[in-house]
Order: sequence, then structure tokens, then C-alpha cells
Amino acid sequence: MHAYRSHTCAELNKSNVGETVRLSGWVHRVRDHGGLLFIDLRDHYGITQVMADPDSPVFSQIEKVRSEWCIRIDGNVMARDESLVNSKIPTGEIEVFIRDIEVLGPSNELPLMVFGDQEYPEETRLKYRYLDLRREKLQNNMKMRSDVVASMRRRMWDKGFREFQTPIITASSPEGARDFLVPSRLHPGKFYALPQAPQQFKQLIMVSGYDKYFQIAPCFRDEDPRADRSPTDFYQLDLEMSFVTQQDVFDTIQPVITGVFEEFGGGRKVDQTWEQISYKDAALWYGSDKPDLRNPIKMQVVSEHFRDSGFAIFAKLLEQDGTEVRAIPAPKGGSRKFCDRMNAFAQKEGLPGMGYIFWREKTADAVAQELGITVKEAQAKLKSGEVAGGMEAAGPLAKNIGPERTEAIRQQLGLGMGDAAFFLGGKPKAFEGVAGRARNVIGEELGLTDKDRFAFAWIVDFPIYEQDEETGKIDFEHNPFSMPQGGMDALEGNPLEVLGYQYDLACNGYELVSGAIRNHRPEIMFKAFEIAGYGKDEVEKRFGGMVNAFQYGAPPHGGCAAGIDRIVMLLADEANIREVIMFPMNQRAEDLMMNAPSEAQSDQLMELSLRVIEQD
Amino acid sequence: MHAYRSHTCAELNKSNVGETVRLSGWVHRVRDHGGLLFIDLRDHYGITQVMADPDSPVFSQIEKVRSEWCIRIDGNVMARDESLVNSKIPTGEIEVFIRDIEVLGPSNELPLMVFGDQEYPEETRLKYRYLDLRREKLQNNMKMRSDVVASMRRRMWDKGFREFQTPIITASSPEGARDFLVPSRLHPGKFYALPQAPQQFKQLIMVSGYDKYFQIAPCFRDEDPRADRSPTDFYQLDLEMSFVTQQDVFDTIQPVITGVFEEFGGGRKVDQTWEQISYKDAALWYGSDKPDLRNPIKMQVVSEHFRDSGFAIFAKLLEQDGTEVRAIPAPKGGSRKFCDRMNAFAQKEGLPGMGYIFWREKTADAVAQELGITVKEAQAKLKSGEVAGGMEAAGPLAKNIGPERTEAIRQQLGLGMGDAAFFLGGKPKAFEGVAGRARNVIGEELGLTDKDRFAFAWIVDFPIYEQDEETGKIDFEHNPFSMPQGGMDALEGNPLEVLGYQYDLACNGYELVSGAIRNHRPEIMFKAFEIAGYGKDEVEKRFGGMVNAFQYGAPPHGGCAAGIDRIVMLLADEANIREVIMFPMNQRAEDLMMNAPSEAQSDQLMELSLRVIEQD
Repeated sequence: MHAYRSHTCAELNKSNVGETVRLSGWVHRVRDHGGLLFIDLRDHYGITQVMADPDSPVFSQIEKVRSEWCIRIDGNVMARDESLVNSKIPTGEIEVFIRDIEVLGPSNELPLMVFGDQEYPEETRLKYRYLDLRREKLQNNMKMRSDVVASMRRRMWDKGFREFQTPIITASSPEGARDFLVPSRLHPGKFYALPQAPQQFKQLIMVSGYDKYFQIAPCFRDEDPRADRSPTDFYQLDLEMSFVTQQDVFDTIQPVITGVFEEFGGGRKVDQTWEQISYKDAALWYGSDKPDLRNPIKMQVVSEHFRDSGFAIFAKLLEQDGTEVRAIPAPKGGSRKFCDRMNAFAQKEGLPGMGYIFWREKTADAVAQELGITVKEAQAKLKSGEVAGGMEAAGPLAKNIGPERTEAIRQQLGLGMGDAAFFLGGKPKAFEGVAGRARNVIGEELGLTDKDRFAFAWIVDFPIYEQDEETGKIDFEHNPFSMPQGGMDALEGNPLEVLGYQYDLACNGYELVSGAIRNHRPEIMFKAFEIAGYGKDEVEKRFGGMVNAFQYGAPPHGGCAAGIDRIVMLLADEANIREVIMFPMNQRAEDLMMNAPSEAQSDQLMELSLRVIEQD
Repeated sequence: MHAYRSHTCAELNKSNVGETVRLSGWVHRVRDHGGLLFIDLRDHYGITQVMADPDSPVFSQIEKVRSEWCIRIDGNVMARDESLVNSKIPTGEIEVFIRDIEVLGPSNELPLMVFGDQEYPEETRLKYRYLDLRREKLQNNMKMRSDVVASMRRRMWDKGFREFQTPIITASSPEGARDFLVPSRLHPGKFYALPQAPQQFKQLIMVSGYDKYFQIAPCFRDEDPRADRSPTDFYQLDLEMSFVTQQDVFDTIQPVITGVFEEFGGGRKVDQTWEQISYKDAALWYGSDKPDLRNPIKMQVVSEHFRDSGFAIFAKLLEQDGTEVRAIPAPKGGSRKFCDRMNAFAQKEGLPGMGYIFWREKTADAVAQELGITVKEAQAKLKSGEVAGGMEAAGPLAKNIGPERTEAIRQQLGLGMGDAAFFLGGKPKAFEGVAGRARNVIGEELGLTDKDRFAFAWIVDFPIYEQDEETGKIDFEHNPFSMPQGGMDALEGNPLEVLGYQYDLACNGYELVSGAIRNHRPEIMFKAFEIAGYGKDEVEKRFGGMVNAFQYGAPPHGGCAAGIDRIVMLLADEANIREVIMFPMNQRAEDLMMNAPSEAQSDQLMELSLRVIEQD
């Protein structure tokens, strides 16, 4: 017999009854039923119930085992009594009577229980990660992560892509974040950098004629930690293709993403048709360039209804250039209580408040006030039909702008009885963010957001440049390597109107994929950088490797990168990135289990020609 | 029609004749046949001949294109004249008459030609890697590397392994080589390290209950460069399994390796049965723990034949303890010229020389000398049969030890006419290396080594410890994490006799795989380290993460790691690792294309609390 096991802990069933077997695994749970000892023996694959009574030759040894000891047992497979069959596990029909036992690895007192649902502080979980990882949820998350990545690879191979590994110890590639530096021993005073992304290398692979590249690529950014971001490294499905248009990239990645979400989404609906929404429309409709489209609310411009209206705040505001009033329709939000709650939300977000109108059944109160009669009389008139009931618009805004404008707004927004609308005004840049967040909260609170769906849309036509409001300085809005729509001609005009072949994929409120058709013409690239204030020397210094390569027959190319940690978080329904990474850092970028970072030895620093500056 | 191509450059054939097509690619070669211009248009997939004559509407533009310009052409597919068909390429039946052309990316003067076999200095090749990578050999090597890695993944998945990514920015894990350090910004004066291998993490994954792990893992070692080693990072197929014996690991990895070698070995024979050779036998038979078994030569101990013999050097040597004389049989090496060449080889290796005997047809010269007659007379006697011809042993050694001992040696080694044997004596440790290299040279020069084969063997039973000859200090011979055969009991005895469950796979003279069954019992581990002079504190400091984990129910486990760069080198028949890495460093650990390493900005160093020490 094998030294450790004849079967895994998920394999035995009725057909094995009578066999002598050997199992190895961890003591998941011990139950003492008056002399009868039952152990749930657990391995990676499942659980088998093993048991012993005082007649067992090794009973005294079995009495000593504790939770999470790793043991090997030999025994006989026995059928369970019909009444004791556990249909929830594949081994539920049998149990194994223990004849022999070997302790393979005993355990100290446990700082964290594997069995059960007890919660532990994150520091404990990270320090004893090897125990935390034995728990069912993390076992499943890590298995899923591995399977998601494997599925991505299979799908990319099937599309004719090859995976190529790009350097990890390389040159600084400024992409907006901070580099991790690696001191060079052979070149004192010089440093390598870990890549923030394989951006330049994948473009060089295209210039090298490889046509279709992908990589499950580690990316390194020295950023301050956040719940949904690893403080050191993260992984992306990185791809690049030559001789393609934006639509070709979409047609390539979409089936990969939908395939993965269908395979691992646990039956949640996966959008099959992905709308393309311009950056401008996304800002208007959803107040975000990564809208949550599970939420059906679409904002609209309603400025005309407020221009010269009785609502002075908006009317005055609209006299200024570049201002707008936008409405957030809130179907089924038509109660004062809800509207007040949203108003409070806006105040928490730093706005003076959020105007609203809601439509309700006409009340006896309202009729009484209108006709100068008592509420009781009004009730009678409504009941008899002497006064018509029906819908009325409520809220201070409705009063200020009057019934005609109110009704026009209702019609534009397609709302009815029981619905509400919220209004924000000013320069769009100033309130779009809050509007987007309000839209999210409204969708959540009113149950409009379909939790059971993965909703995707491409956000396209990003502007290449943005202007700093204060300094007036023009800088890249997004990625400096994207091809401007219209090429060189477009760059000769107003830079703020130039759009790029640049796109993000939004899913359930997250940016899941980002990419572009690249600017592969050195002259257009130099011009694009010049507009943002970078001279030729600067470009050559920062991106020399790539820019030089473009002088030797560069093909048109483009691609994208999908965030793997984020995708697995969505699929596993986790809000914290550390639930989908096997050995994550804590929020202070420390590994408590391995004790990193730590002091270097002085001879190490000597070899690297470095000295640590003492802190005050 | 698509913006760039209707077909790739490998797709068109006779069935497309008459179609209007669009192709994009690089100008591989231009030929001017008196006004007729022929261009070999190349993309990742193949080459298509496109052509134009002065009647083409874009002839003047086509005249301007040069090698490696990236262009798009539209044209009509035409059948080639029967006599011009090129059966070597899939598109050889057709050519495309150009109707329209667009230059997608022009090229500067080329520092390196893609077309043709011209050789360039390595610095040029690395600086313009994107041009070098367009050349056929590197295109093929990189494709093969990618396909080898993909094949490994598929094979591991099929065996029920999951790939898990382990941290890259982590703690120092001293494994014999030098760490790359990464300064921490958030923890001034502290450093992360890049992993030399995922050794500790994969063992932690086992302690976490995952049963079967693999990873195509990047490993980082700050080592001085060598031709067959990358100066910064390299990749290995890393695997680990729980509840396994050494044989289980062998049974797992062997089909993966043979499968890959059969798939990509270009028809070379792949050993199906892998011998297991003890470390001790490998040293004796092959003078190496990574023997080239394509070479059939097996060394033997022949001390007895020299003890008290007339060859004083060996006879005296054998009076000392621990000495031996070993023979390297050299079938078909029986000529004085060859023996002298090998003797010279030994001298180049620093030995005084290498004794030899060779067996040849008895010559008239020898008979003349023996009988005191003229050579002419001797020839006559041999011809008439008056003197028997046949074999004679030649060489100074044969004379010194006499015919009986010489004959006994010949019989032990199974040699005959036309063969030779070389002899080395002393303490084995002192001459084993040279003996092994001599064996290689003999195999090569005599054509005994079968170039058309991948020959594999497991080298097993490595000693855990070795003793420093001078200081007498005992240290780990190999990997300190291996389980000693015999466990704790074995460690109580003579440490130099303790063998480990530790193994290497030798293939054609290289170490391709290395692994072990791990020491998962903390008490045995502490004892093992204690013997090598490391106290408990030191072990906890260096390997704390892993040793702590072993206190909580560690399973028995083991695994191995296969060097991917090395495997691809063997399959691609390359001697330089830079031929199988897409963007390699040069031998001074520099990336000439990306300009790494480079000076850091002073604010970067400030943020990291570091100062560079000026060199003298």
C-alpha cells in the first residue's frame, strides 16, 4: 500500500465497503459520543468520517489527536446506518473504522480555528495565513483564482495568441505610478526598476513582428495601500495585437471575458452585447467612466426647464457659461422620506443639498389646503368623486417652477406616480462625481440594481488631453501612448477636442479592462508629447527604447489589459483584494508571516554601495 | 475590407487566384528585375510575393520602399507561371499584383539586416533586439519557448495540479545565492527581496492544504553572469505535492518532461526508462552528478591491478588511505595519436598527465624488436605465420605493470583490439571532475556520444552534509530543507553518512530538474541545522515563516523544479541562454535597449531614505 494514502478524503463510497484503506489528512473535527470517537478527516478534496471505539487497537493514540493535526489512518470501510447517511458530501454513505494511525504532523494550540465560521482580526489571519488558507472560503477562492487564470490562458491560446514573458528586472517605465527600484550590485549607484506594466515591452514585441501577444503579467507599483488594491504587485491579462483596429481588440477580448464570467459566475447573468458609450455620454448619463449598468438609471440634461424659472438658484446658475442642470430619475423613489435621505447624502458629499420632485397620489391634506376646507371634508369629496384624485407633484422645487415645467420634466424623464427625480446644477465637472455616486445609492436603495448580473460596456472616445483648471496647463488625460483619432491633423487643432483610440471596459461599476490603439508613428508621438509640454529629449530619455524601435518599421498595433485580481473579486463576490490573493501584504505593505520588509545586512548594503539615511 | 489585411502572408494559394486582397507586413526583400519589382512581404505567419510593373498605379511609391518598412498593399492574386512556383512556402503558387500601397511604418537605415544569415556582434543584436527578433531563428526560438511553457501547463493541469502565484516582492530567502533587494518606501531603512525561488512559499502552500501546486515561476538571483545563466532572473517549472514519496514525484514529472521533449525535440530519441543512479555511483562511473548518458563510457575502479605493481606512481599512491585508481575505457581510441591528445588534455586540466594503455594489431616493428631481427624479417615471419600476429598492449603503463596485469585490466574493462583505457589515481574527490570531463571529450572525439538522443537519469541519494577538507566544518551539501533518509535516527549517527531524499535529473550533461522530499518535522529540521552549526535562533530568523508553519500540522511533502531556460536551450540546440529569452540582459547585466540599470532621481532616493556611496 502507498505510504500515505490509497484514496483521497473525497473518494470512498458504498462501493468500497469492506475494503481496507489508507487515508491522510487533517483532523477537521473530533466528536466524542460516549467512548465512540468520530473524526472528520479533511484533505484538499473532501472529508471522510473515520471512527474508533475502545476495541480499536490504537484507541489510546486516537484519543490524543487534536484539531488540525495531520494524520494517516488505516481502516475498514463500513456502510453507515441508513439514518446516519449524509447526502451532502460524496463520502456520506460510509465511515472508516480505524485500525492504525500515524501522526504525520502534530499541531500547537491553534491561533485560528479552521473549522467553523469564527471571524478573526486580519493581522491574525495574515500572520497564520497557512491556517486561514485551510478554511473553506479561502480554499475555494484560491482554487477559483487559479481556474480563472487557466481558463483565460486556454481562451487566449485558442485565439492564436502566444504568451511571452517580459523582463521583471528592467528599466523605469514612468506610467503615472511610483516605481519599485532595485539597486544594481554590478553597477554601483545605478538602479533597475520593476515594471509598472509590460506596456513598452509588449509594444516592442509588436515591433518585433510577433502579431499576437498575451501574458498573465505581474505589475509592480509602489502605491499607498487601499482595500481594493495590493500595495505592491498585481496581475493583469495583458494582450497586444498588430494590424488591428479598436473593434478588432473588442472582438478579441469580449468572448474571453464573457466566457470566464459565464464559467465562474455561478449562474449570474452575463451581458452578451456590450454597448459602446462615449466618455462624454458616460459622464452625462452615469456620472462616471466606469458606470454600473446593472442600475437602469440614466441621467438627463434638464436645463431648459429651469432657465428663467421660479427656482432662482438654478435660473441664476444657468446664466453662467458652461453650466447645466441634470436630473437623476428615481423610479419608485417617490416618498418624502426617501427624498430627504438622498438630500442628506448630497450634503454629506459636500453639496448644499439636492433638489427633488416626487409624484404621489393626491392626498386629502393637499385638497383640504387647496380648497380651504377640513381634511374630513376633503376625504369625503375625494371619495364621492366630487374632487378628482390622481397624481400630484410634491417637493419645494415643484412649487417654485410651477406645474407646467414640472409636468414637462416628468414627461421628459418618463416618470409617473410613486417616482422621484433629483436635480444637480453647475459646471458638470464639479458635480458629475457626486451625481454618479447619488445614482449608485438611489439604484441600491430602491432595489433597481440587478445584483444577479454582470453588466458590461465599453467606454470609448476618451479625450487625449485635459486642462488643469488653475494653471491652464495641458496634460495627458489617460495614457500618453494612444493614437489620437485623426492622427497628426487632429493634433494641429484644439488639443482639448482631440479624442483617442482609447477604451475602458466597465463592469458593475469597476474598470475591468483598459486599452488603446497605440501611437506607432514617432512624429505623431513627438507632437503629442510636445503639446503636453514634453520636449523630444525628454521623450527619448523616458521612453527611448520604444521610440527608437518605432523608427524601424513599426506596425499599427493595439491591445488592452484586464485586471485579474479585480475579475476574481467580482466572481468570488469579495470586496477585499486580500481574499483573492494567496499570500497578500497587509495594508502597511508588510508580510507578517515572512517578516518583510526587514533590515538589510550591512555587507549587503556595502555591496550595493548604499547607505540608509537615518530618520529624525 | 479590413483596414489592414484580408489575409495573413501565409494564407493565399491557388484557390485565391483572381481575388482582390489586402496584406500587411514587412518588406523582407526587394528584387528589381528590369522594371519589374518583386517584394517578399513578410508577417509573423509567412511570406507572400507581391509585385508591380510600371503600369501599376502606385509604381513610383513602390520604388521607394526599403527593407523592413512596414507596408499595407492591395492587389490581385495571380497564379505564378509553373516554372516559377516555389514549393517551399505555402504561398509559393501565387503572387499578388499591387494596385495600392500604404506605408504604415517606414524604417531608418538598418543597423542589422533581418533577411539573410549575416552575423552581428551581440551588443548590436541586444541594442536592436526588435530587429534581431524579426529574424527567423529567434522568431522560431521564441515561438518554441512559448509553446514549451504552454505544453508544460497543459500537462500539469491534466495531472490535477493547479497553478498558484507566489509573491515576487517578499522576504529574503537565503538559498545560497545573493538576493536582489527592493527598498521599502513605507518602511524607511527596510528592504524587501525578490525570491531566489518560491521554495518556502510552495512549502507553505502544502501546509495550507492545497495538495498539488505548480507554477511557471520567475526566480531572481544576483549572480555574476555566465553564458548559460541569466544574470538577473530565470524561470522554472516549480511543483510540490503533499503525501508523496520520492517515487511519486518521479512518476509525476517524468511524463511531463518526456512529453515535452517528444513534442518539441524534432524527432530526436527520448529515453523512456530513466535509470536511478546514486550520487556515489554517478561520481564513480561518470565523474559528475549530471552525467551525459548519451556517452556510453562508464568508469571503473582498477586499483587492484596497480597495487604493488611496477608502475611506482600508482603503487605508492595506493598505499595512502582513501585513494583509488580508476579507468576510463575508450573504445576505438586505440591509437598513440589519440592517447597523446588525451594526455595533453589532462595536462591542460592541471594534472601531470593521464596514463594509458591501448591495444593494437601486433606490428612488425614490435616483433623485430622482440626477437632481435630486422623489420623486413619480422614482416616475413608474420606473413608466413611463423610468428603469431594478433593483439598487443601498447603504452608505457603496459610495460611497467607487465602483460598479466595489463590483460586483467583489459578483461575487466571488456576492451579489445583498437581500444584504449586511461587511468587516473589519487583521492577520488581530487580527480573525479577531470575524469568526468575527460570522459566527455573521449566520447565526443571518438563519436561515441549519440547526438540524436535525450538521455535522462535520476541522480539520487545525495549526502545531506559535506565536510570542508581544510576546516573540517560540516555544512549542507545541497538543500537544507530535504528530509534525511532514516529521519531523526540517522541524524544521531555520523552526519557524513546521512543521505537525503534529494534528487536531480541529469539530461545530456545538464542538471534539468532538482528536488527533494522535504523535512516537514520541526524537531528534525532544527537537529539537521544544528549539525551544520546553525542554532535554533538562526533558523527561526532565516526561515521563520516556514518553520513556524510546520508547528501546525504540516503534511509530508516534496517536489521539484525544472529549469525552463535550460530545457528550451536543449530543445532549440542553443548554447547561449540569450538565444531563448526575448529581452535578455547582456553579460554585464545591462539592458542596452531600455537603458537599465540607470541613475535614480534624487527625490526617489530621498523617498526611500537611501544615499549612494560614492566609489573611489
